[in-house]
Amino acid sequence: MALQLYVGNKNYSSWSMRPWVLMKQAGIPFEEKMVRFDSFDANSVFKKELRAISPIAKVPVLVDDGFAIWDTLAIAEYLAERFPELHLWPREVKARARARSVCAEMHSGFGALRTHCPMNIEASLPDTGRLIWRDKPDVRADVARVCGLWGELLAAQPAGSLLFGEFTIADAYFAPVCSRIRTYDLPLPADLEAYVARVLALPGVKAWVEEALIEHDFIDFDEPYRLGR
Amino acid sequence: MALQLYVGNKNYSSWSMRPWVLMKQAGIPFEEKMVRFDSFDANSVFKKELRAISPIAKVPVLVDDGFAIWDTLAIAEYLAERFPELHLWPREVKARARARSVCAEMHSGFGALRTHCPMNIEASLPDTGRLIWRDKPDVRADVARVCGLWGELLAAQPAGSLLFGEFTIADAYFAPVCSRIRTYDLPLPADLEAYVARVLALPGVKAWVEEALIEHDFIDFDEPYRLGR
Repeated sequence: MALQLYVGNKNYSSWSMRPWVLMKQAGIPFEEKMVRFDSFDANSVFKKELRAISPIAKVPVLVDDGFAIWDTLAIAEYLAERFPELHLWPREVKARARARSVCAEMHSGFGALRTHCPMNIEASLPDTGRLIWRDKPDVRADVARVCGLWGELLAAQPAGSLLFGEFTIADAYFAPVCSRIRTYDLPLPADLEAYVARVLALPGVKAWVEEALIEHDFIDFDEPYRLGR
Repeated sequence: MALQLYVGNKNYSSWSMRPWVLMKQAGIPFEEKMVRFDSFDANSVFKKELRAISPIAKVPVLVDDGFAIWDTLAIAEYLAERFPELHLWPREVKARARARSVCAEMHSGFGALRTHCPMNIEASLPDTGRLIWRDKPDVRADVARVCGLWGELLAAQPAGSLLFGEFTIADAYFAPVCSRIRTYDLPLPADLEAYVARVLALPGVKAWVEEALIEHDFIDFDEPYRLGR
């Protein structure tokens, strides 16, 4: 039976984007199950649909032959084990450990960037981004850490590489950050801008972005900066 | 060279407790490096000491022959790979996936429980706990989810087992939750109280708790409910 991946709205759901991009880019076939963000109230259609497959009722959820795996990190580890030939994590033990460190850091951190610059693929909010950059030192600190992390990893690779050379889970993990940087036009050093461009040009990322752009589903609670399209 | 584990104060540092308990309970030798919580300001001794070994300057950090691995989940995966014979994750593929799901859920979730019931091993705060329980629905929801999660896993095991039968990373991950439940005397069904008791009786957990009890280092910013001992 095919793998099924439950995701939220492509324009907004940064957590859904990670495993979807990972699977697309790595060539793992799956059936997409899209559950629209109506609201996150306990009785919303969104929560009811998801509660039927996972106790935490959040996206993303990977379902393999009826067995649900939730949380992006657990999904990534499951896929890495199920498809060892795809080398979803870096092959070398220290690189693999470092990739897991930076993914785990993303998983529980970068709260200011996530709060103030929510993913919104179709939007272009450079002025909002400039206000955020001016007024939110925590966002500047989060971006500085992203730059430090990317810069250190890329410095160890040939020019034009991804974080660990070839595409790995780590690039999928940072793809939504790349999208936020574009939406809010956050300033980056040129070499890291080039990394953002490389990530956004990956076929798996482009496929997600293209589908986000045709979604046209304006969700108020994910739109702190816009009244409408 | 021996593994080194950098941890914070044993009375307070719930994140440090997880890999320390994991290694102790699994019998993995390591050298402990304790970095006292003085403050989390950028120029604190704590941050300076940690910044020298890890870019995010947080505990815990595992150092293997000079190579730093940060974040509890990345440390757990690293140890599981380095010591495959110890079976730190469950052996069966679905159980392993489920263990990773619940650890990842803990890693980025349970914010109300973590905020309102910070770990404080030596303290006994049942009245504070009753106020929290009365006034904080989000804490009640977090505890309900912990109970749901533990209950479902334990129902699949023989009586008296840990979450996946034998000790795994998942039990180490929930050990600080067990400690909080005791400190704040949060109400649990009897079968889950018994699981808490089993976790607190594990030699690796007892060793951490014993060292926490003799620490006697009162850290104001980790003590929202006490003026002194």
